[in-house]
Formats: sequence, structure tokens, C-alpha cells
Amino acid sequence: MKFSINQKDLYNALNIVRRAVAKNQTLPILTGIFLKLENNKLTLKSTDLELGIKYDLKVEAEIDGSIVLPATQFSNIIRELPNEEVKIELNKDKWQLQIKCLNSLFKINGYDPDEFPNLPQVEESAKFTLPSSKFKEMIKKVRISTSKDETQPALTGALFEVEAEKVKMVSTNTYRLSYIEAPLQTSVNEKIAVILPGSTLQELNNLLEDEGSVEIEVDSNYARFNFAGIEVISRLIEGKFPNYELVIPDESNSKFSADLSQLHGAVKRASLIAKLDANIITLQADDGLMEINSAEGSSGYAHEEVKIDIEGPEQKINIDAGYFIDVLKVLDSDEINIEMIGPLNPLVVNSQKDGDKFIYLIMPVRSQS
Amino acid sequence: MKFSINQKDLYNALNIVRRAVAKNQTLPILTGIFLKLENNKLTLKSTDLELGIKYDLKVEAEIDGSIVLPATQFSNIIRELPNEEVKIELNKDKWQLQIKCLNSLFKINGYDPDEFPNLPQVEESAKFTLPSSKFKEMIKKVRISTSKDETQPALTGALFEVEAEKVKMVSTNTYRLSYIEAPLQTSVNEKIAVILPGSTLQELNNLLEDEGSVEIEVDSNYARFNFAGIEVISRLIEGKFPNYELVIPDESNSKFSADLSQLHGAVKRASLIAKLDANIITLQADDGLMEINSAEGSSGYAHEEVKIDIEGPEQKINIDAGYFIDVLKVLDSDEINIEMIGPLNPLVVNSQKDGDKFIYLIMPVRSQS
Repeated sequence: MKFSINQKDLYNALNIVRRAVAKNQTLPILTGIFLKLENNKLTLKSTDLELGIKYDLKVEAEIDGSIVLPATQFSNIIRELPNEEVKIELNKDKWQLQIKCLNSLFKINGYDPDEFPNLPQVEESAKFTLPSSKFKEMIKKVRISTSKDETQPALTGALFEVEAEKVKMVSTNTYRLSYIEAPLQTSVNEKIAVILPGSTLQELNNLLEDEGSVEIEVDSNYARFNFAGIEVISRLIEGKFPNYELVIPDESNSKFSADLSQLHGAVKRASLIAKLDANIITLQADDGLMEINSAEGSSGYAHEEVKIDIEGPEQKINIDAGYFIDVLKVLDSDEINIEMIGPLNPLVVNSQKDGDKFIYLIMPVRSQS
Repeated sequence: MKFSINQKDLYNALNIVRRAVAKNQTLPILTGIFLKLENNKLTLKSTDLELGIKYDLKVEAEIDGSIVLPATQFSNIIRELPNEEVKIELNKDKWQLQIKCLNSLFKINGYDPDEFPNLPQVEESAKFTLPSSKFKEMIKKVRISTSKDETQPALTGALFEVEAEKVKMVSTNTYRLSYIEAPLQTSVNEKIAVILPGSTLQELNNLLEDEGSVEIEVDSNYARFNFAGIEVISRLIEGKFPNYELVIPDESNSKFSADLSQLHGAVKRASLIAKLDANIITLQADDGLMEINSAEGSSGYAHEEVKIDIEGPEQKINIDAGYFIDVLKVLDSDEINIEMIGPLNPLVVNSQKDGDKFIYLIMPVRSQS
């Protein structure tokens, strides 16, 4: 293996594949990045056996070859080099890579590339395409409601459903739920319903850019995402996702709207007091005004008022302020629309735009001390 | 206590006094900020019994009074308020402060201000003045060499010496040493030699701005720093500071100079490999070239070259790369001047400007595996 590459291009590539490098040391080779040079193409690969990332770039190759290098060390060195041509050469006898750039010379010990696992194949799978910006938007809104509780694996991910000309994503930790649907340009033959891990959503959110499109392939074990020269392969979560349709109310009692940034500021401030306790706030929506109160606890009390437009009777509900803030953060409109059906039913935040539909539920807390 | 104040002014004041708030909960009242309103002057105070900070600002007072409020909570609330007028009113019966701003209302429970300790007085003390920018510069350069080892308290701080028309600061962890001296406009009657705690240096570094001057008063137990309306009172470290003069070499064998940013980059990169081991690098200064090498360890090897001007015989020394990087970070010139006296004597970095003198020593490491 012998080639030259611009420092910035290599660092950019390493930053992409680093995201799937194993965080624990159980299998040391998985803390490395696999490099392969063939036909003037440099392929970088990483995997923690749940997630895999592959990235290709064109280089001027002198000698083909491959090696696995410790990810942190290799990335740190490339980061600190000047933005100049980096000359790379493999000493295959020692599995040692030599890096030269201006007056710098490094030799890094790596691993035998034959010991690096192959990324899984996605076979005979359903295939469709989404604009990157839309997919990123969906992930952003669904990611907030995934559960951290590993004893219910299905809830730590998001349901990913594709049917006819619609794609849906749903997540819930049973106390709140995100539902998002968008129209699909290309229709699929078979209905897809799989669960994507929360960590995969996080890395896709980091990697996806606002331009271009994502090609998505799904079989019964893996999902594959292709975009901007990057290939992401994720294991799916086995298990049954709860029947979310039962939870989403199909009618409401009162609807109201408020200025998003005003409501965001008010809830954030009320939560500064509420979170010293259980972070529960009381919303009271009345003619033209939403009052937000923390419980009167040992540390103090917060009261906020925000102007609203309301249709229907007055409403009062106790909810987790943190769950409310999460959705206020990811909405991108100027206004927020909220629906309520009394203090014992979920509060519903919803938005619709160009055929996209987003619903966010927060279950009420029975009473506030 | 009843007054109005602009949100930004109050937040700025809280950010200053927060720095001396106690980090542990041993005495709960010390995790608070003391507020006192008298004669249209609002005084804010905090102390962890080692360090104390006091800050005054003018406000429109309606009713005088005082209270102690939990620092984090109070600061967080003020931070999240809009930049508008904040109306503050004390309920003295409950030691509860009411905060109003536009549509926000908060009540925070505080503490009886009579239980808050007074900041210590500095009595019949030596007094002198330094430009803030110079004092900050001195602190920045001396701070890096303080020790973290609490079993030798004197070394966790910096010696602060004022004599005739000179001010000196010295710190050492026995493996490296910072010495800085500057001329003093005003002379002091008596020689001052006290030890300032490392934490005090850190907070002064955070608080000092580049404009104005600092008035410094020192007695045998405390030092007081007055600048920009801020008063910082610090307990001194008891104990004897080592005789640093014995360590600073009064002659050198070879002198050389290099481009600071080139050398900084090279040492940083070599350290990426060296730090996987004991972070020791070998410097080899020869005719026109400084070579920097890591040991050839299990993870790899680094070699860097930097152009130098050298006067005297060639030199070779093993030093801790981290100690070298620390000084490369705080130097503010384009060039660096280094002196060496063989592999068994300290490497000396020095700079002189407008009567200021800075010396930084790094003790050599005997051998490198």
C-alpha cells in the first residue's frame, strides 16, 4: 500500500468512519479503521458489529494493499498535520504504516486486515429513496422519544415503516411518543416494518447532510443507507414494537396555538425550578392565556404566562417539562399547535407541512403535589 | 429589599461572584450568593472560605435589605430571562425572593444573610498597583507550573514576591519551573513574599481583563485584589517555598531559536505517539535543525524536524512533551529562545520584553527506553 492524499480529504474521511468504531476494547481490532487501496480507490471501513460505516475516495495509488489502524491515534495524527500532501506507505511485514507530511514522519503499528470482520450484506431487500434533508428531519423528531431502558430493546429504537407511498417513523418510551410520516416518491412492493437502533439514528443524524438523497435498503436483519459516498449498515432490533395507533387520539377537545419561541422560553424557565423536584409543570390554557406553573417546592416556585389562541373549553394538565422542552427544541415553525382532551389524556403537539405529518404525545402526570 | 435592574447587568454580576461559590455542600449557605441593597448600591458576595469575591453595582433601590440565594438556581433563572427590566422583591419572613420580568414570576427560597460569613479583612498591609494586562500575563505563565500534589501545599501555589521596584512570581512542581519578573512603577516599603493558591490564580486569570489596573494588598494571611469594581480576597498558603534561585542556571552551553508555531505543531504531533507511553520526547539540536523523536514504542514512532538557529555545540535531551507544550501554548512571541547545558541539566526557555523577564525550566529525563 502506497499512496498520496491531501490531509483535509483524509481527515474528513476518518471523521466519517470513526463514528462506527467500537467504544469498548473487547475486540481490539474493532477499535481500528480498516483501510484498503485498490484500483486508485481508498476504502475506509469501521464497525462495532451493530453499526458499520464504509467510505470510498479516489486517490493516486502506487501500490495496492490494506491494513487496520487504531482509530483515535490515526485520526489525531492526521488532524494535527498541516493541510498538505500526506504520503502513506505500508510495511506489510510489521503491519506498520508510515505517514510522511512535510517535516513530519510517523510510524503507526496496526493490525492484520484479514482479521477485520466483513460488513454484513443486505440481501434481496426492499429499496427506496428519500431526500437526505427529509430523512434527517424525521430522525431528529423521532430520536427524542426513544427509550434508554435496555430491558425493553424495541423501545430503544424507532419503528421504521414503509407502505404503499408513505414512510413512517415512530418511537416511544411509553411516557411520550413521536410519530412522523412523509409521502414517498417511489412505492415499495412489500410493506416494511423494522426497528432501527437509537444509536443508528444518532449517527445518521450526525452524518446526513441537507443535500442529495439517501438510498435505503432493508431486509429482515439489516438496513443499509447510501448517501454522499457513505454507506451505513445497521443491525435491526428484534422484537415487537407496541401498537402505537391505539395511543394516538383521533379527536381533541380543545386546540390552541402559541408563539414557539415564547413558549419555549417560558417552559425552559419554569423547568429551572420544576427540575429541582420531579420536573413536573402544570399547563393551564384559558381564554387567550396559557399559564405554566411549577409545584411550590422547597426551593421555590415559578409562574409563566404565554399568549395563546384557543378553540374549545379551558384545559389543565400536568406534564414532564423535559419532555415538553424536547419537542419545543426540534420544531422548526414559528407557531406551535397543541391539542388537549382533559387532564387524563395525552397532550398532543402536531404539525403538518407539504404532506408531512408530525405528532408528539406527552402522557399526563396524575397530580402534582 | 426591593429594586429593579437590567437582566444583563445582573447576570454579568452573578457570573463574576459565582466563581468563589463553594463547590461542596458541607456548609450549604456557602453554595449561595449574598446580596445586600443599601444606599442604591447592590453588593454581591460569595466565598468558599479560601477565596472571596465581592462586586458592587448601582441600582434604583426602593427598600434596602439582604438575603443569600442558591447560586446555581439564581444564575440559571436570570440567564434565561429576556434582556428586560427585572423587578426584585424580598419576602423577609420566608427569606424568599420574588423575581418578576415581563410574563415571568419566580419565587426562590434563600437563607438568612446574618449566617453568611464576612469576607476577611486585609490589615495594615503592603499595597501596590499593576496594570491588569501585565498581572494576567504573569499569572498565565506561572499557573502552568503549579503542582497538583496536595501533600506539598506550598508547591500547589505560586510564590509572589515584591521587592524594591520589582514583582516576581515563581511556581514549580519540582519537574519544571516558571519564573517571571516585571518592573513595578510604585515601590513598596517592605519586601513581600507570600504564596498565592493555584485556585486563586485560576480565578484571577478568568476575571482579569486587559484594561485598567489591579490594586494589590497583602498581609501575612490574605491577599486582596481590586479591579474593575471587583474585590477578590484570597487566603495565602502557609509554608516555605523552595529556594528557586539555586535551580535557575546562570549560564548556558548552547542557545537556539525557532519559529514558535512550527515548533508547537511539531511537539504536539510527536506527543500524539509519545503520550501513549510516558510522553517523553528526545530533542536533538544540531546545525540548523532540531529533531524531535518519540521513543519507538509498541504503538509506533514519531519523528519531526524544525529549522533552528543555533549558537554553541549540538545538544540532546529527553523531556516530558506535556511540559514543553504547556509553555509553547502561553508564549506570545513569533520566536522561541531555548538554552541547553547538556542532557543532565534543565532545558531553559526564556523571553524578555520591556523589562519583563520570563524563564521556564524543564528538568531532563535521564534516559528513554
